[in-house]
Amino acid sequence: MGTALINTNFQEHIHKMNERELELLAYDIRDFLITEVARKGGHLASNLGIVELTIALHRAFDAGRDRIVWDIGHQCYTHEILTGRAQALGVLRDFGGHASAAISAAMGLAEARTLAKEDHQVVCVIGDGALAGGLAYEGLSNAGARGTKMLVVLNDNEMSISQGKGSMAKHLSRLRSSQAYQQAKQQFRERMQRIPRVGDGAFRRAERLKDIMRFAVVKGSLFEELGFTYFGPVDGHDIHEMVDLFEAVKLIDGPVLVHVVTKKGKGYRNAEKQPLRFRSIGPFDPLTGQELAQPGRTWAAAAGEAICALAEEDARVCAVSAAVTDGCGLGEFSRMFPGRMFDTGVAEGHAAAFAAGLASGGYRPFVFAYSTFLQRAYDEMLMDVCSKGLPVVFMVGRAGNAGTDGEAQHGVFDLSYFSTMPGMTTLAPACEEDLRAMMRYALSAEGPVAIRYPRGEVAACGGGAPSMVPLRLPGGEGADAWTAVDVEIRAAGRMAGTALAAAALLAAKGVRCGVVSERRVFPLNLEGEGGLLAAGSRCRLLVTLEDNAASGGFGEAVCAALFSVAGAPPVLRLSWPDAFLTQGTEQELFEAHGLDAPGAAGRIEEALTLL
Amino acid sequence: MGTALINTNFQEHIHKMNERELELLAYDIRDFLITEVARKGGHLASNLGIVELTIALHRAFDAGRDRIVWDIGHQCYTHEILTGRAQALGVLRDFGGHASAAISAAMGLAEARTLAKEDHQVVCVIGDGALAGGLAYEGLSNAGARGTKMLVVLNDNEMSISQGKGSMAKHLSRLRSSQAYQQAKQQFRERMQRIPRVGDGAFRRAERLKDIMRFAVVKGSLFEELGFTYFGPVDGHDIHEMVDLFEAVKLIDGPVLVHVVTKKGKGYRNAEKQPLRFRSIGPFDPLTGQELAQPGRTWAAAAGEAICALAEEDARVCAVSAAVTDGCGLGEFSRMFPGRMFDTGVAEGHAAAFAAGLASGGYRPFVFAYSTFLQRAYDEMLMDVCSKGLPVVFMVGRAGNAGTDGEAQHGVFDLSYFSTMPGMTTLAPACEEDLRAMMRYALSAEGPVAIRYPRGEVAACGGGAPSMVPLRLPGGEGADAWTAVDVEIRAAGRMAGTALAAAALLAAKGVRCGVVSERRVFPLNLEGEGGLLAAGSRCRLLVTLEDNAASGGFGEAVCAALFSVAGAPPVLRLSWPDAFLTQGTEQELFEAHGLDAPGAAGRIEEALTLL
Repeated sequence: MGTALINTNFQEHIHKMNERELELLAYDIRDFLITEVARKGGHLASNLGIVELTIALHRAFDAGRDRIVWDIGHQCYTHEILTGRAQALGVLRDFGGHASAAISAAMGLAEARTLAKEDHQVVCVIGDGALAGGLAYEGLSNAGARGTKMLVVLNDNEMSISQGKGSMAKHLSRLRSSQAYQQAKQQFRERMQRIPRVGDGAFRRAERLKDIMRFAVVKGSLFEELGFTYFGPVDGHDIHEMVDLFEAVKLIDGPVLVHVVTKKGKGYRNAEKQPLRFRSIGPFDPLTGQELAQPGRTWAAAAGEAICALAEEDARVCAVSAAVTDGCGLGEFSRMFPGRMFDTGVAEGHAAAFAAGLASGGYRPFVFAYSTFLQRAYDEMLMDVCSKGLPVVFMVGRAGNAGTDGEAQHGVFDLSYFSTMPGMTTLAPACEEDLRAMMRYALSAEGPVAIRYPRGEVAACGGGAPSMVPLRLPGGEGADAWTAVDVEIRAAGRMAGTALAAAALLAAKGVRCGVVSERRVFPLNLEGEGGLLAAGSRCRLLVTLEDNAASGGFGEAVCAALFSVAGAPPVLRLSWPDAFLTQGTEQELFEAHGLDAPGAAGRIEEALTLL
Repeated sequence: MGTALINTNFQEHIHKMNERELELLAYDIRDFLITEVARKGGHLASNLGIVELTIALHRAFDAGRDRIVWDIGHQCYTHEILTGRAQALGVLRDFGGHASAAISAAMGLAEARTLAKEDHQVVCVIGDGALAGGLAYEGLSNAGARGTKMLVVLNDNEMSISQGKGSMAKHLSRLRSSQAYQQAKQQFRERMQRIPRVGDGAFRRAERLKDIMRFAVVKGSLFEELGFTYFGPVDGHDIHEMVDLFEAVKLIDGPVLVHVVTKKGKGYRNAEKQPLRFRSIGPFDPLTGQELAQPGRTWAAAAGEAICALAEEDARVCAVSAAVTDGCGLGEFSRMFPGRMFDTGVAEGHAAAFAAGLASGGYRPFVFAYSTFLQRAYDEMLMDVCSKGLPVVFMVGRAGNAGTDGEAQHGVFDLSYFSTMPGMTTLAPACEEDLRAMMRYALSAEGPVAIRYPRGEVAACGGGAPSMVPLRLPGGEGADAWTAVDVEIRAAGRMAGTALAAAALLAAKGVRCGVVSERRVFPLNLEGEGGLLAAGSRCRLLVTLEDNAASGGFGEAVCAALFSVAGAPPVLRLSWPDAFLTQGTEQELFEAHGLDAPGAAGRIEEALTLL
């Protein structure tokens, strides 16, 4: 079936299959997913969990006419297969931006549908973790109050990225375990079975609607309070039960939420046992579940160790995690210092404002989040932290090129938004030693500090390169000797490694390069020996190299600062373009944009010829 | 009593007053508020509404030891009076950032208190409108799940800035009107009265707690579902009832929400009748309630008229308002086109993502919000609108210097954040004609557009000044004749008027200035006649003038763009500093930062002497 699966667009077929065929389809898809992800790597556990749910949605709705909005793009593998895109698995760019946005977007589509007097269905699929986000609440609340006809399918796999820490997680747990619901579910199944599936007359539809509504009156459900008609919980691995329910709720003229319970990693024992490990995984042996290449020491692990060391020395150190406790290496911290560990769930805005409160109360919070999701806390970082000058440290993980994590995961805007926040000190470590030194510095800083570091393996310490500038922070050490060179490359964070490699390539061609690791990106290092203002006395060409978009980034700030400086050298700015990065491996993306060492060296060489 | 009120710090006195004295104090404060705001202008309706609530908080808690966090700074007048700051009424800078942040901040303070093994109380006061914001939900949900000991006082004045449109507004309305609550309230009052207020032994405290908890078990309250113990609704104008309840709930070791019902404008008939008009008002006659100076035609009114005209022509035009329907002049639109009017409540992130859905469904949404609050939608504008290139128009009101509206109301960061959003076109009208033309242009644009305009009176049309460049948009008209000058001032938005005035002052000293209204701020107008790249051929000094912070703003972008341009002129950047603006009248702030016409002229003259 493998080939058939790859080449078939199931959007029509699926409506003609019988129950047994649908189940076989689920079996085949699951088999395909395990084989494909084992071979290429990808998001496995979450995709295995929603095979049946996706089939049921495609059966109950018309994917060519109805609109299905997926909250998270990387859970769409089955959807991609069913729509004939199995060969490009995982590269789908769908509607979803960041978590929780799908409800709002679907409400927009639904209101547009109503304005246009069309009658297609609008469905959105959202995970339980995303419900901790305020945006989900805003969307549910607004759609509920307006009575927008739309269906929200809540995919409850009993676990967001980390364990859900919010009240919503507890609420869903109560709904799942409630005896009344178990009974209602049984009655519902029996009743649905009594209603003939064939025949679609108005009378039968009305009867069916009346029948189903009896199960929707749930006391104490948050969703009911927000104006939604709630159904659930439903078994997310029973295609037929879901199809029946989806067909029935189509008739309801208002906002409906169907609570579907699924199991992450379903059908693959290794993934069921260790869903976190199989969330986003590299190529692995499908029999043993072991990854073929063992990843080395990560930035996350280094940061996790460093915060533990600081917390042992200083009782004011706290960790605040926006649902990235595991992803940011905070497992050990949360075991060692449970009282000083705060996991807010997918709620970055709250994490920042909450940290402002902790800092105001005398503590030293380190807020851990991924660069791209921290965009959600832009206002709170600005108005609740910076405007009060509070000593909150933002540990900005997965900054820059996020490779195969997905398009919406690239963190290429953080230097831009930090640069505009008054009082924010923005640091970028090039290696683990940098990271530790910066965290220690941040703990003693008087105002807010952001430390941005990439995903993946951390660079080794000890930067032996002679022209790497030691950490230049207020009160820090001085610079190495500054000698005249042809080119001075000032590289932020991990790009220092790229700069060194580019310098080596250029040296082979007789071009002398000095490399500066721009550990403190903002405020700019303008003054003193090695400062940017005096760059013209040291080199013929200044190069800025950063893993951030051009606008508002390091290079742009350098140019603006040097604009009216007499004797300033020409500046070559190497950065991501002002656009949204596509998906690819990290290496592919760096190469495609001339940000790998050969690419950078080539562009520098070309710039020299134009001088 | 006026003088006594001004010079007294009531924090101690208030604990010794009897019931009658507390009521007299409320009477005096209300009188003072009406007199003061009538004389100087300010926020009246909301402050009149919480006189008794504030007194009750100061009586029940120890303002010197307990922490009271106010969600909105401009509702703190009574708090300012009670803490001896009556003379500086309205200039208080308190904890509050933007709406809804207080719950998160208070949770941080409460967790810090617990970590430090201290035992003071942490209270936050939040309005009903702010509960539509996702941040409030994130804070309640996280505190509820963690069981943080803290008190949230919900000031429910039955109306957020516009009428609350979310489910929370309906929920509160249900809670208020429920017969059961009315009875419970009556019983509660009687029961509280039976408990002697004196005596504080452990036994009595335990009895009291048991008694009060009987009223806290509320089925179907959202707050209970989020993990809070809910009490209410309580009469927000009955000091004694509130004091009793606040004293009692201190004993509860977990998160508590007290729902207080107040009346905006309470005690001043004119404000009770027209609370919106008395929200933020200039000096007025206290007898008639008439404002002494009638404000002229505002930007908001102009935008409201223009959107109506566009909507009449084009059925795709929708308006999305983040609780600013009245403030943004959308009253008429919502009457004329109720089906195309969407008020999301204080939920900017949802407003942006919802608009993305509308646009994706074929409609043309204009999202109205104030610049400073739109910061909350940074991520959604970037990831849900820009990354998809959707034609959503952001109508960014109250951009720049917001004068006496308050510190957190200045919108001086929007050019900075728009500049970093790939695909966003950012426009700044200098007059009403500009505004209308830009809205029409935005309707035909293929991607996202932001139009930023200030608060207050709109500049008249017809910019007779000869060197004002006509609207330069793709497909628009060309420029006027470009003649050589000493100085070319490129001013964004309303600053064009300032630039013209400065040019007149300089002309008197023999300095020839050309003024360009930089209607399209981003992308920069680089090419063509009048483009920035050729500025060096037209002038000796280029001046950028903007109502935005320096970092990431117009001037910085111009310098970065001209950095390597041969023959580029020196650039003088006039903008707000990279800091948070304090409060003051618009004029005071412009003057203090050299951004009024004489200030700008002086700085230009000085720059010329340095050439």
